[in-house]
Amino acid sequence: MENIPYKIYLTEDELPKAWYNLRSAMKTKPAPLLNPGTHEAMSAADLAPVFCDELIAQELDNDTPYFEIPQEIYDFYKMYRPSPLVRAYCLEKAMDTPAHIYYKFEGNNTSGSHKLNSAIAQAYYAKKQGLKGVTTETGAGQWGTALSMACSYFQLDCKVYMVKVSYEQKPFRREVMRVYGASVTPSPSDTTNVGRKILEAHPGTTGSLGCAISEAVEVAVSNPGYRYVLGSVLNQVLLHQSIIGLETEAALKKYDIVPDVIIGCAGGGSNLGGLIAPFMRDKILGKLNARIIAVEPASCPSFTRGVYAYDFCDTGMVCPLAKMYTLGSNFIPAPNHAGGLRYHGMSPVLSQLYDDGLMEAVSVPQTEVFKAAEAFARVEGILPAPESSHAIKVAMDEAAKCRETGEAKNIVFGLTGTGYFDLVAYEKFHNGLMDDYIPTDEELQASFDSLPKF
Amino acid sequence: MENIPYKIYLTEDELPKAWYNLRSAMKTKPAPLLNPGTHEAMSAADLAPVFCDELIAQELDNDTPYFEIPQEIYDFYKMYRPSPLVRAYCLEKAMDTPAHIYYKFEGNNTSGSHKLNSAIAQAYYAKKQGLKGVTTETGAGQWGTALSMACSYFQLDCKVYMVKVSYEQKPFRREVMRVYGASVTPSPSDTTNVGRKILEAHPGTTGSLGCAISEAVEVAVSNPGYRYVLGSVLNQVLLHQSIIGLETEAALKKYDIVPDVIIGCAGGGSNLGGLIAPFMRDKILGKLNARIIAVEPASCPSFTRGVYAYDFCDTGMVCPLAKMYTLGSNFIPAPNHAGGLRYHGMSPVLSQLYDDGLMEAVSVPQTEVFKAAEAFARVEGILPAPESSHAIKVAMDEAAKCRETGEAKNIVFGLTGTGYFDLVAYEKFHNGLMDDYIPTDEELQASFDSLPKF
Repeated sequence: MENIPYKIYLTEDELPKAWYNLRSAMKTKPAPLLNPGTHEAMSAADLAPVFCDELIAQELDNDTPYFEIPQEIYDFYKMYRPSPLVRAYCLEKAMDTPAHIYYKFEGNNTSGSHKLNSAIAQAYYAKKQGLKGVTTETGAGQWGTALSMACSYFQLDCKVYMVKVSYEQKPFRREVMRVYGASVTPSPSDTTNVGRKILEAHPGTTGSLGCAISEAVEVAVSNPGYRYVLGSVLNQVLLHQSIIGLETEAALKKYDIVPDVIIGCAGGGSNLGGLIAPFMRDKILGKLNARIIAVEPASCPSFTRGVYAYDFCDTGMVCPLAKMYTLGSNFIPAPNHAGGLRYHGMSPVLSQLYDDGLMEAVSVPQTEVFKAAEAFARVEGILPAPESSHAIKVAMDEAAKCRETGEAKNIVFGLTGTGYFDLVAYEKFHNGLMDDYIPTDEELQASFDSLPKF
Repeated sequence: MENIPYKIYLTEDELPKAWYNLRSAMKTKPAPLLNPGTHEAMSAADLAPVFCDELIAQELDNDTPYFEIPQEIYDFYKMYRPSPLVRAYCLEKAMDTPAHIYYKFEGNNTSGSHKLNSAIAQAYYAKKQGLKGVTTETGAGQWGTALSMACSYFQLDCKVYMVKVSYEQKPFRREVMRVYGASVTPSPSDTTNVGRKILEAHPGTTGSLGCAISEAVEVAVSNPGYRYVLGSVLNQVLLHQSIIGLETEAALKKYDIVPDVIIGCAGGGSNLGGLIAPFMRDKILGKLNARIIAVEPASCPSFTRGVYAYDFCDTGMVCPLAKMYTLGSNFIPAPNHAGGLRYHGMSPVLSQLYDDGLMEAVSVPQTEVFKAAEAFARVEGILPAPESSHAIKVAMDEAAKCRETGEAKNIVFGLTGTGYFDLVAYEKFHNGLMDDYIPTDEELQASFDSLPKF
């Protein structure tokens, strides 16, 4: 056993005092959000009815490298951060690999995932602006849970539009949001114009993230004192999530560990964008030679099979256009897809970095993901969320390669959350009822047709 | 803000290397287990068909103060220990109390509770003895989950008898045990003689811990290569759980904090007995003046309304007799009782200490417990298990008293686990469907009649 502990904890004093804005290091900046009507870049004034003012400033700022974390947010972070960086000794032993595997564990708070890092920041700025409340959407439920906690802490009203299929399949997710005082509405609903329109066009639909976003935005802009908040994709979210990467960097430095491979799951990109922030900066600066790998589900492969183009962020087309790797805003993953990571697009920041060749992407089928998840759980103890398990799968693949080559590579991955609310999916997997659906080229082509043309 | 961090983490080097045996400090030792037929003290040979050999040695040893933690167990502990001691700054602020509140958080492992501390030890000794597997019972499911994880780690077979009502109401608990490879049978079942007998006498019964214990013991003694393991009550379990108290003591000492009040929930006593071990020693030695408080549910009040007598540990009366505070082995808490802590008896060690006047006990109604749980969750972020919330309730009561008196007492309580699998109970609470049932004196008298007479 080497001198590196199972868990590298930072002290409270080592908790980063500022978020890091990766955009400041990018040679090609991410493309701006566009007004869907005029196709002009959205200004702060354009965005003001939808987002909180300070968050808009963060969203539009491609230059400032560091944003100081306000004291109120810092105090909240201290309740569950710094989070541990764990050396997966047991997994290494079980796999008989010379690789050194590390994971940054973000599941050690009640929300059960990294989403809380941005939720508390967004709730804080809403409170500071004197708002009454915020609206949002949630799919798998991690974001909604995190935001409910954050709003409860700052005594803000929280209205969550939850994709109907998740609302019905995950009653406990709904209930945990209620513990924290949020109101939860299944989407599409008849509480909004866009919801009623979608229900009319597709009666019996079980909803999608794109629909739920449209509803949440409509409620925010039509109710005084409310704004809309989002848990992924946006630049501001990646900024807040940089806390993950900054802590990881500090923990690795304590033991002079230089990562060879950095791996994260990618849905909208919030976790991956946060985890890689300081490492990608060093890679851009030529100071680090690590491979950086985004892992996405084969059933929702925006990086690996999508196109890089301006697209709608939501189904109702009420949001600004974003330039991103996308499958088209009409794309909805097959219903047998178990986990989250089902958004049709990808963070503009990560999309640009991928397009610049600074990172790789792989897609993995879900049964392989659950196999890896269970193997991991049995030796490392943690029951991982299906989303996080995408990263586990590829980390284990990389570690298996090291077994072949004999290389003692340092593999770092993000373990974004726990799977306590995903046991229906684990049950399916155990009972052999889970299969792998991979969209055909024809299906993807059909959804590409929904891309805006200009 | 003082200089004490939100979370006091110990380093891996500070993880205790030995368990502490509180019995070694007790002036009056706990009464021995008796053979239910002969009423003679059980010898190691008598216990050998039921328990693993090394665990029997630990069970019977009232003198050795420290037991070194075997390296294999120590390595496992390092995956999730030392656990944090959290200063509840946010709760203090919300309550406007001068009290300093600390909680030892044992929910930061997948099993979600402190039960893992003993499960891994018991699995290790079973493996070392060359056994094929172990049997056990589980009620709320925390012990079964922990044992499944531990057995999976050491590749032991694990047969869990789960109280039928929990089996049906908590499918996810069942499923998480399956993730770790355990077999789970609802109890009473037709797989054992005792189960068939109970089903015949009480068709349609939803089971009890006492029944499930009888079944698990029968399977252990009638299958070669199997032994029975138990998650609470026994001396050996309190020994393993002393890791909680030792870490708490070390963390408090780092900042020269002397506890004034130490609080833990008490069902069979595993968490409380572990948390208080070093503090009770100091109290016995006259070195510490702290109040030590056991909190039990008003619906299952073994300390506050039970009798101190020899009783059966199980419904089927196949286990040894134990001298303990008990409600009678026939006692089953009302079905509306939401949480765990439903065992009819109490650890013989704690029973003796309570009888000696070294600790206090209070019982609390469940709606008050859930009120405290939710208030805690909203400010401290952690969603507590209903069991743990009994301690929260009394810690908050003590902190409220400090607000009246202006005293800055140091209040330390055990937060034994998370409530992710208890959202049905939280939902009942939200919907106003939870009520408080307190057994009448007549009901208790009826169950006292089941006590063995000799």
